[in-house]
Amino acid sequence: MLEFIFRRASLLRWLPAVLLAAACASPSAASAKAGPATVERWGTFEIELTGPKDGNPFVDVSLDATFSQGDRNLTVLGFYDGGGKYRVRFMPDAIGTWTYRTRSNHKSLDGRTGKLSVTAPSPGNHGPVRVAGKHHFAYDDGKAYLPVGTTAYAWIHQPAALQDQTLKTLAAAPFNKIRMCVFPKWYEYNRDEPAIYPFERDAAGQFDFSRPNLNFFRHLDGRVRDLMKLGIEADLIIFHPYDEGHWGFDRMPPDADDRYLRYLIARVGAYRNVWWSLANEYDLLKKKTPADWDRYLDIVAKQDPFRHPTSIHNGEPDRIYDPRRAPITHLSVQHPNTGLIASWRTQFDKPVVDDECEYEGNFEVPWGNISAEELVHRFWVGFMGGGYVGHAETYAHPKDEIWWSRGGALHGQSPARIAFLRRVIEEHGPIEPLTNSWMWTRMPAARHGETFLVYYGPRQPMRLTWMTLSQFPLSKDGNKPHPRWRFQLIDTWNMTVTDLPGVHEGKISFDLPAKPYLALRAIPVR
Amino acid sequence: MLEFIFRRASLLRWLPAVLLAAACASPSAASAKAGPATVERWGTFEIELTGPKDGNPFVDVSLDATFSQGDRNLTVLGFYDGGGKYRVRFMPDAIGTWTYRTRSNHKSLDGRTGKLSVTAPSPGNHGPVRVAGKHHFAYDDGKAYLPVGTTAYAWIHQPAALQDQTLKTLAAAPFNKIRMCVFPKWYEYNRDEPAIYPFERDAAGQFDFSRPNLNFFRHLDGRVRDLMKLGIEADLIIFHPYDEGHWGFDRMPPDADDRYLRYLIARVGAYRNVWWSLANEYDLLKKKTPADWDRYLDIVAKQDPFRHPTSIHNGEPDRIYDPRRAPITHLSVQHPNTGLIASWRTQFDKPVVDDECEYEGNFEVPWGNISAEELVHRFWVGFMGGGYVGHAETYAHPKDEIWWSRGGALHGQSPARIAFLRRVIEEHGPIEPLTNSWMWTRMPAARHGETFLVYYGPRQPMRLTWMTLSQFPLSKDGNKPHPRWRFQLIDTWNMTVTDLPGVHEGKISFDLPAKPYLALRAIPVR
Repeated sequence: MLEFIFRRASLLRWLPAVLLAAACASPSAASAKAGPATVERWGTFEIELTGPKDGNPFVDVSLDATFSQGDRNLTVLGFYDGGGKYRVRFMPDAIGTWTYRTRSNHKSLDGRTGKLSVTAPSPGNHGPVRVAGKHHFAYDDGKAYLPVGTTAYAWIHQPAALQDQTLKTLAAAPFNKIRMCVFPKWYEYNRDEPAIYPFERDAAGQFDFSRPNLNFFRHLDGRVRDLMKLGIEADLIIFHPYDEGHWGFDRMPPDADDRYLRYLIARVGAYRNVWWSLANEYDLLKKKTPADWDRYLDIVAKQDPFRHPTSIHNGEPDRIYDPRRAPITHLSVQHPNTGLIASWRTQFDKPVVDDECEYEGNFEVPWGNISAEELVHRFWVGFMGGGYVGHAETYAHPKDEIWWSRGGALHGQSPARIAFLRRVIEEHGPIEPLTNSWMWTRMPAARHGETFLVYYGPRQPMRLTWMTLSQFPLSKDGNKPHPRWRFQLIDTWNMTVTDLPGVHEGKISFDLPAKPYLALRAIPVR
Repeated sequence: MLEFIFRRASLLRWLPAVLLAAACASPSAASAKAGPATVERWGTFEIELTGPKDGNPFVDVSLDATFSQGDRNLTVLGFYDGGGKYRVRFMPDAIGTWTYRTRSNHKSLDGRTGKLSVTAPSPGNHGPVRVAGKHHFAYDDGKAYLPVGTTAYAWIHQPAALQDQTLKTLAAAPFNKIRMCVFPKWYEYNRDEPAIYPFERDAAGQFDFSRPNLNFFRHLDGRVRDLMKLGIEADLIIFHPYDEGHWGFDRMPPDADDRYLRYLIARVGAYRNVWWSLANEYDLLKKKTPADWDRYLDIVAKQDPFRHPTSIHNGEPDRIYDPRRAPITHLSVQHPNTGLIASWRTQFDKPVVDDECEYEGNFEVPWGNISAEELVHRFWVGFMGGGYVGHAETYAHPKDEIWWSRGGALHGQSPARIAFLRRVIEEHGPIEPLTNSWMWTRMPAARHGETFLVYYGPRQPMRLTWMTLSQFPLSKDGNKPHPRWRFQLIDTWNMTVTDLPGVHEGKISFDLPAKPYLALRAIPVR
């Protein structure tokens, strides 16, 4: 089972211990000959079949399986996994018995049937992330999911020790989503050849885009599962421009793009923590046309029965990809001004994630050199606007071990503050920004139920008075503001929440400590 | 001559010593009977005439004078100054002999002629401010004028001691323009009755808008001259909404508005440091219509032969008054985002002054509670965008002596940094923002001749390399960038300019101190 690892001894130094463990912890599997198997809800059920290994099974053999429960039928693609083995992976979303039947252009793989028994999810398994309401997210079991993401584009293409370190860092970090490229990256600070490429090479040493490198994709499987164990969504970047023809993965022919996309969906689509980011900086992928993006989206719509969160991320701030087209679930935006999130929510009626509002770091280029204070401020502004903001870190490093690209360690001051923000916002609940007063266009405020939050940012009011409170929308009964309030002062930089003394009513007025980066929570008292 | 001061003893405590001195230092005057008088270029020449004092001379008597030199003829309004005295004030813009002839509907004032001899301006007199090129300002003698303004709306309506303090503060402050209301102000933190009102009251105690209060307008004259002596432009706000009917100066009938406007132009239009701000927050003057603004502008165009800088200031950020209409010379804007200045320059082809980008202070309301760091940052962003930004201060004070409204003392940390900014920008020369690279949309940069300036703001690059330099536009010969450079590091908060060692050429790369609020100047070396 592990022969692929030992095929090239030199690979060993690249493949971290975590991967070896992960490769052993395979999904719940059933051979087509065995009796009914058991898998938990939103777990990964896998059918293993044996079929042809001649020719190019990746191209020659078609395989899918339809899983049924009552009136529901979900069809998932299968994929070739080498050595004559074929697999179909399925993520059941309902408890109980499911049956399946395979379909193939090859007799040995066609019409195979079986059953599976789906049990309740284990603790920590809340299912895949869905859009909740218009502008937020929740796991499939209803638990709110507030994305607090980071980016480490090429972390899975680094030496094993660095990948291990990345997972350890993530385990202690506040992030519950990571943007990561499937393909390796050829860009400033990361012009190394990876240990494993996504495609095999032909006799002439050229990449054969029709033959996925199984070592690579098994590695990817393992990394996605590692993240799942940490409770982190894997926001997989399927195409990106950081290749510039060096390997040519950014300019494959359309049929190769489509085959790759289907293969990826078949392999990792049954992992509940997968998101599809069709591209990073799609507008910088100069060889691709609008028709290409339409076609990719059609493939995702058709081949992903699990409806993972799907987006296309822009490069230029004014080139946001129109997210209204199916199956796009949300905006994944690059924009330095997180203050625009509230208006994009209104414009597009979908959740907004500003995955790249510039990074904490000290690069020469502006997208990678804002201070921690500035990044944390942009996080607060974006979250107060009812959206979500992503982190990355770009501090120059003697070995170019820069989180944004390679993962490794975090050195900045923002993650601790982002952890604090996450706790505050999760406690508050999904944010609905206030737009009923000119005041909130400058001093963002939000409601959740009947609790209000005001973020002062670079402002330093010395007092809170009724003037602010009276700008809050009326209470739920629509008649009048609550008469009695208590308050919490939130120091977003020093990470403290202080209960202010007393219950206030009438012409409320009390002093505030007139310094930047404060927020205030107003809580009605019954 | 000073009898108006002693008419009401109680006035004395309101009229500061500076005014008494100013009243003595009257403009160069000539009675129509005297021989040719002498006045310096851009000084104020005054004709005094004696005429009717019955009825209401403000309404009944028309008076103007045409001043001629060669083919040039400039006509200025005269005004009634009480006690049967009429005056015509003139600001000659050319050296040599001028003649004049008056015109009036009253025989005693009509057809009076005379001469004046205009000499070279004294040191410090550079004439009125003009638009220079498309987007900047210069005095009439060609000396660059870079407006660095402040706001103290109601400073001339305060007790005498406070007005004195305001002038002392201004003498030591970096500001060369002040926004100030002609009419008193009735608004938060300033709900006091002024000592002198702009109009007389009738027998019933109602304001008689047809009778300007001469005490008030003489006081205004003096204040404008006090500012002139300090080298400060008086940006006179002619109408404002901070009255709300309390006195009714915000809702006078159209003929009263027009008569007031003409009277004001006649009285202070010959002072070279006057600017006309037709309104503060014009859009909040709910009783006025678009036709009113057109009419006021027509009056300024017709009655001000000296073409003082003219603008209309907005309230809501999205209600900027279209400045393309004559005689508007520039945008006077209220907007928290000074990063938009560069685009307004392009859109309107006029200079942009963001007079109100929110104020340093600790008010509860967002327009008055940004930190000094944030205000200084907004100044730098605006100046780097090729525009100008204005200051005010809104720190709560036990006696409500708040600079923004009453003047007095400055308590904030921004003025010293604004003084530093002014020195740096004046040394650099008027800013032309760079727009040839995406980089400058995030990290504003500007050129002046062949010198470049980059402002990093909240960014903290650890290095400058050729990557940045190569984004500068080519040198003036249009062929290639300069090969040799020297650099200055500018710490905008700590107010230092450091010459970085060496002359650099080729693949330039050197370390920067990776902290916020830096700027860098690149200077070509021959």
